[in-house]
Amino acid sequence: MSNAPVLLTPGPLTTSARTRQAMMLDWGSWDRDFNQLTASLCEQLLAIVNGADSHHCVPLQGSGTFAVEAAIGTLVPRDGKVLVLINGAYGQRLAKICKVLGRAYSTFETAEDQPTTAADVDRLLGADRSITHVALIHCETSTGILNPLLEIAQVIAHHGKRLIIDAMSSFGALPIDAREVPFDALIAASGKCLEGVPGMGFVFAHKQSLAAAEGNSPSLAMDLQDQHAYMAKTGQWRFTPPTHVVAALHEALLQYNEEGGLPARHQRYAANCKTLLEGMAALGLRSFLPAAIQAPIIVTFHAPNDPRYQFKDFYERVKAKGFILYPGKLTQVETFRVGCIGCVGPDGMQAAVDAVADVLREMEVLDI
Amino acid sequence: MSNAPVLLTPGPLTTSARTRQAMMLDWGSWDRDFNQLTASLCEQLLAIVNGADSHHCVPLQGSGTFAVEAAIGTLVPRDGKVLVLINGAYGQRLAKICKVLGRAYSTFETAEDQPTTAADVDRLLGADRSITHVALIHCETSTGILNPLLEIAQVIAHHGKRLIIDAMSSFGALPIDAREVPFDALIAASGKCLEGVPGMGFVFAHKQSLAAAEGNSPSLAMDLQDQHAYMAKTGQWRFTPPTHVVAALHEALLQYNEEGGLPARHQRYAANCKTLLEGMAALGLRSFLPAAIQAPIIVTFHAPNDPRYQFKDFYERVKAKGFILYPGKLTQVETFRVGCIGCVGPDGMQAAVDAVADVLREMEVLDI
Repeated sequence: MSNAPVLLTPGPLTTSARTRQAMMLDWGSWDRDFNQLTASLCEQLLAIVNGADSHHCVPLQGSGTFAVEAAIGTLVPRDGKVLVLINGAYGQRLAKICKVLGRAYSTFETAEDQPTTAADVDRLLGADRSITHVALIHCETSTGILNPLLEIAQVIAHHGKRLIIDAMSSFGALPIDAREVPFDALIAASGKCLEGVPGMGFVFAHKQSLAAAEGNSPSLAMDLQDQHAYMAKTGQWRFTPPTHVVAALHEALLQYNEEGGLPARHQRYAANCKTLLEGMAALGLRSFLPAAIQAPIIVTFHAPNDPRYQFKDFYERVKAKGFILYPGKLTQVETFRVGCIGCVGPDGMQAAVDAVADVLREMEVLDI
Repeated sequence: MSNAPVLLTPGPLTTSARTRQAMMLDWGSWDRDFNQLTASLCEQLLAIVNGADSHHCVPLQGSGTFAVEAAIGTLVPRDGKVLVLINGAYGQRLAKICKVLGRAYSTFETAEDQPTTAADVDRLLGADRSITHVALIHCETSTGILNPLLEIAQVIAHHGKRLIIDAMSSFGALPIDAREVPFDALIAASGKCLEGVPGMGFVFAHKQSLAAAEGNSPSLAMDLQDQHAYMAKTGQWRFTPPTHVVAALHEALLQYNEEGGLPARHQRYAANCKTLLEGMAALGLRSFLPAAIQAPIIVTFHAPNDPRYQFKDFYERVKAKGFILYPGKLTQVETFRVGCIGCVGPDGMQAAVDAVADVLREMEVLDI
């Protein structure tokens, strides 16, 4: 299985053999051993954000989007109003969730290469006092852009409003400290920078906000208050947990801590990103974002101009050399994306760059 | 890992080493290879119910309950009314889902050892013409009771109403033929009788009903119409799929078909159930249900009368001998449950009975 392609995508990612090996055991979901695994998982996750005093970790079955919808549905009261900050497809999805859930919302959209600023949020909250919550994507994987979380969070707190952070692609790699960044909910998932396998999300929910959220949720399965209350009482998940996914994430977290925790993970991904950017630049491939707002998570590159370049062919050829890339998600510009995250280091990234170089030569793509 | 306890529960279950081994590969969720895996999965699932002409298979991230909620939220229109048939905890959960989703509903409850009858349903539908849908648990794992699906389905069709079947614990082991049993939705999950790992559900949704369901769902993540439409168009899941769980279920289905499909699976579980019932009867342990309504899925046993019997101690001792049992779920009677399903045969069940016998001796439980 070691010749499987390396996944250079925003997730699912390449995991370590040790993480996958943790799935070779079947767990009874009612059993004490599994309850201990869940408790240990939540404790380790909370420690990453220094959130044990202020927040509960509520794990949820499903993809990250399920956890995002659950956070909005549980924590925004039925008469609340959400300001959604958008600079890409995942921000758009936040707005869509508010719409489908029937929560009042307004949107503020900047260009895909423009971070939202704290000044924007200050102005918007001043202009509409009916807003109760602000929802933000930390790192927007449509492009790889990083929004200035700390500054925005401080402005929101200053206005006495509440913040919901989709940190799906940044959590575990970029520092977020619950003692400095005030938030009601921060959402991430198993299959991203923690290098687990996909199948569960988790929400760090502010303790008081969660306690006050009983009856808010328009869903039974995605009611985080109910999920937490049951787990606090019994140690168990309300509904069948994805036991193997939980075990894999637990094993991935042990390795995360052995590697050196967040600073080490961040450093490896930053080195991956640097290797990628320099290597691709040497081939003439231009990245879409300026370095200052480029998170070391995923990089968007302009597609070559040469008519001999076709993404599908390019993708298949690079895959045959052992690397799975990702299509672009911009509507105006032709791009492709390369992830910097997962169980891979700078050597692997250099090998990916070399594969791209070989493929462009094979395809006779000259006008880059 | 082969000394892990055998899970004799309603799920998650013991899986084969081959099924777990399928999780040793990381898949790109956008990649063609993974799309083919999903398509093959859905095709194999539909074949089990002979549903390819009449139904779509819509897979969904999360536990089985997520898929049940998704089916009700997607297929019952906002002005619909659901008659929920209840004889245990999972029927109660159906009613709770209707309540939380804000769908009108009424309930009909029989005792936990009393199947709902077709005559009951006929009478109820005659008395309340505003009912549009009937929701039924096929095999209620609270006790292990089997409800007469075919007869009830025919009565519902006769009244021109629509049926939603929670077949979580029966699908794949007990025959259900979409050409004979009219239904709008049948819901099951990966970690039950198909012997995959938990982490995804799936809904067989009637093609016309699903096509007419656009905009019904009060959830984005659990909108089956949207999930299906996107998958039909792109071959991909809308949101990150639990790739390893999907791969495991696909591998489990290959083994299901190699074993001989549903008849063989049913036969093995029936043999497991027979071995269990006879073995436990020889120890003096009485099953809660009469044989006629006992599905070969999970058996509820009366707890011994002896004051030296304590479930927790009993459970731990049987676990130490290699078998994980399940607590009872009845409010009036003290019981425990033993599953007949998963990657285990009659020899394994006999070993479980022997372990129970040893433990009762060790605990000096005499008055059974």
